[in-house]
Amino acid sequence: MKKKFDLELFLNEPVSRKNGISLFHQIYEGLRRAILSKRLPSGVKMPSSRLLAKDLKVARNTVMDVYDQLIAEGFLDSKARTGTFVAENLPLELLETKRAENPAKSTISRHIAKRARVFGETSFWFTPIKNAPRAFQMGFSAIDEFPIEIWARISSRKIRTMPRKQLDYGEAQGYPPLREEIAKYLTASRGVRCETSQVIIIAGSQQGLDLIARVLLDEGDEAWIEDPKYNGAKAALLGAGAKLVHVPLDSEGLIVKKGEQLSKKARLAYITPSHQFPLGVVMSLPRRLELLEWANKNSAWIVEDDYDSEFRYEGKPLMTLQGLDNNNRVIYIGTFSKVLFPSLRLGYLVVPPDLVEDFTNALSFILFHAPMLEQLILTDFIREGHFGRHIRRMRNLYAERQKVLINAVKENLEDFLKIEKDVAGMHAVAWLKKGLNDAEIAKKALEQGVYAPPLSFYCTKVKLPDALLLGYTGIAPAEILAGVERLKGMFKSLKV
Amino acid sequence: MKKKFDLELFLNEPVSRKNGISLFHQIYEGLRRAILSKRLPSGVKMPSSRLLAKDLKVARNTVMDVYDQLIAEGFLDSKARTGTFVAENLPLELLETKRAENPAKSTISRHIAKRARVFGETSFWFTPIKNAPRAFQMGFSAIDEFPIEIWARISSRKIRTMPRKQLDYGEAQGYPPLREEIAKYLTASRGVRCETSQVIIIAGSQQGLDLIARVLLDEGDEAWIEDPKYNGAKAALLGAGAKLVHVPLDSEGLIVKKGEQLSKKARLAYITPSHQFPLGVVMSLPRRLELLEWANKNSAWIVEDDYDSEFRYEGKPLMTLQGLDNNNRVIYIGTFSKVLFPSLRLGYLVVPPDLVEDFTNALSFILFHAPMLEQLILTDFIREGHFGRHIRRMRNLYAERQKVLINAVKENLEDFLKIEKDVAGMHAVAWLKKGLNDAEIAKKALEQGVYAPPLSFYCTKVKLPDALLLGYTGIAPAEILAGVERLKGMFKSLKV
Repeated sequence: MKKKFDLELFLNEPVSRKNGISLFHQIYEGLRRAILSKRLPSGVKMPSSRLLAKDLKVARNTVMDVYDQLIAEGFLDSKARTGTFVAENLPLELLETKRAENPAKSTISRHIAKRARVFGETSFWFTPIKNAPRAFQMGFSAIDEFPIEIWARISSRKIRTMPRKQLDYGEAQGYPPLREEIAKYLTASRGVRCETSQVIIIAGSQQGLDLIARVLLDEGDEAWIEDPKYNGAKAALLGAGAKLVHVPLDSEGLIVKKGEQLSKKARLAYITPSHQFPLGVVMSLPRRLELLEWANKNSAWIVEDDYDSEFRYEGKPLMTLQGLDNNNRVIYIGTFSKVLFPSLRLGYLVVPPDLVEDFTNALSFILFHAPMLEQLILTDFIREGHFGRHIRRMRNLYAERQKVLINAVKENLEDFLKIEKDVAGMHAVAWLKKGLNDAEIAKKALEQGVYAPPLSFYCTKVKLPDALLLGYTGIAPAEILAGVERLKGMFKSLKV
Repeated sequence: MKKKFDLELFLNEPVSRKNGISLFHQIYEGLRRAILSKRLPSGVKMPSSRLLAKDLKVARNTVMDVYDQLIAEGFLDSKARTGTFVAENLPLELLETKRAENPAKSTISRHIAKRARVFGETSFWFTPIKNAPRAFQMGFSAIDEFPIEIWARISSRKIRTMPRKQLDYGEAQGYPPLREEIAKYLTASRGVRCETSQVIIIAGSQQGLDLIARVLLDEGDEAWIEDPKYNGAKAALLGAGAKLVHVPLDSEGLIVKKGEQLSKKARLAYITPSHQFPLGVVMSLPRRLELLEWANKNSAWIVEDDYDSEFRYEGKPLMTLQGLDNNNRVIYIGTFSKVLFPSLRLGYLVVPPDLVEDFTNALSFILFHAPMLEQLILTDFIREGHFGRHIRRMRNLYAERQKVLINAVKENLEDFLKIEKDVAGMHAVAWLKKGLNDAEIAKKALEQGVYAPPLSFYCTKVKLPDALLLGYTGIAPAEILAGVERLKGMFKSLKV
């Protein structure tokens, strides 16, 4: 074994002052790679730092720093009075032998968890959405209308004036003044019955759904879910190991009796009673009472996802199921993503007093807490009335956009699509002419640059008439009209 | 059944203009509660809106709005030409009968998931930390030194100048320019070998640990964890259903051979090789190679938590285990919470190319994505050099604080505590005089207002000599000295 140091052996590339990488880093990496690849074998005596510095035309300190680093990391050994050596007994063959066998992109050993495969098999969207909204993407806000200047102003002020301790770890449950504002808002506007102590701040409703499922469901537990359904909830429940029970709907909402037939021992029911996703059905009062009774009798939990109830265009928003519950069976979930802007990632849960501690403990290990600056800004945004004002403005705007969509569809597509005014929501259901398959039509629409997901994409067991879902809230009226034009062209081409 | 409307029946409290609640809301709530409680029974004919408005001395429109709302919600029925009635067939007895049986705070039916109970039984801290840091809380940053004005300035500019589309949903994997900056930083400073495409933005390292555990571990899978250990990692692994294998350490770090003896088929090993938490041991090069070989041979994953490696006070930070891995077995995790400020909640993973899609899919259903504004601000904070500058400043500051702590302990507590300089980290290990029990001493310290968690709190199976852990990074020097004074008083009182 060659025991003498040879400069050539370690410097594949000469040290350069022009490649933007520090001299330290170049020499360090060169030596490290030479040792790992055994070009510099165990036991080789390194030249003195003075000598190497001279050869490399760098400062001696740089070489000394490199030696210190490699000694600290175990690549070199420093022996008193004799010098510096490449470390002995490094089991480098372990690295070498295997490198050849296992190619960098190996699939054989890519063992991941079952739940991760479930996540891979589920998708939010009919097709991946990469760019800004186009007609008729669903669930997007009119971000051009968001009062960003106000947000910026509050943000500046907060960052400059808040107590420094807001930079430290916060409470897992969320910033108390924000929780208080939310409790007030929900009590006054949504008929939620809650104390501030029941409100938990989450990082958006998807994070909340995941949290709920993980706190309440064990692997193999049965959970009711509406069919058709919100796929984010489906993934969250499956991710916690739940066995899904797909419960159909009628014009009064979820058919509780059907759920009881399908599954006697479900631990949880996930529902969107104010405005069912995606059909828009409002759950009737008798049905609500029936569901509460079922939960109470079976000690089951109800998850009420109130994802778009701020956008009710006639009358006030409907009061919540949570507000009817006398037995602490309802976990209520709401989000700021749709009302303010999606990339904010803040939402809230209202949980029964009994469960606050369980949820907070779990949240602290799953997320720690939602980012504090965002919570501080949002608190003032609500307190100063901007939140209420923005909701009212958006309610008018979205009502207007819905009107534009419905009129345009009625005028241009009446042979193919039947669409009705909806008193609430962020998208409309457009029923297809008999004989047209929604998945096929949606694919053809996509080819024309129009995003109009098929209702069947949201169905699991239920078979419903074919329909397209047309979002309108995040789409400017001109885009809505252009989208309808393109759909018209697409439908006409079918006739040929 | 009394079928005539009686004003007294529904108004428990008279309508008031002075209680800050809208007239609409007062009347609505009054009627709703009267119906739910059957004080206003099914079938009662409601007075005309004109009459009720006159009785209540409110505008007729207000009463009409209330009626419309209650009709929409199913509490009232409107019959053409005959008037408005309390709805028939509301199964209200379901609510009523059960209310008495189940008290509001019931524990019988509080069924939660096993993993939620695990979260409840684990804790980050020896005692809950509610307020700002005091001596000697661990893992806190010197938030007083954070350049908040710079953060505020970038924040203002970003919010005002960013494209509006940044308010829309972002990419689950994170904002690409931020991921690029992180990849550059890790390559240059931490010896991580990665492409931008392997970097995933997470909402803090705890969220990342949870994500890793859930993507890689099925219920019942074995996972190695260091003993003593970081409790956040323990909770994350248990939360995914893992069976923990507690592997002891020696002066070279995790004893790989011991791990192999304890568990042949572990799927994952969680380690802190740069600076073991909480002991501070640096994993030796031979041990690192051994661990990589084990992972490769067994197709197991290594989770490298590099939680405090920026704070190395002599020489450069040690290069990572990830940088030695030729077989894509290492998932690397880092955080901005400790380097910048804890309430920011941003961190990053570097995952093997093979796993990027699995992690991104899972993240999209667990979190959707980290908040966008924070990501935008941080990107500029790094690009403009503030990040590097801040790390360098904090490195000097923390080195200084460590010195203050160690000198003060040596001068004042040498009879009770043995403490040595550590070349890295955010806390020091202070070994107790033989015969003193660390849990008892820590409790006595707490009584004196000093937080000094016992090493035994972090141990599961291993029995180590008694020691206290003393954080110093987030504590001002005067506080450090005051804390040492108080410890001195406490120790002196023991002698009595």
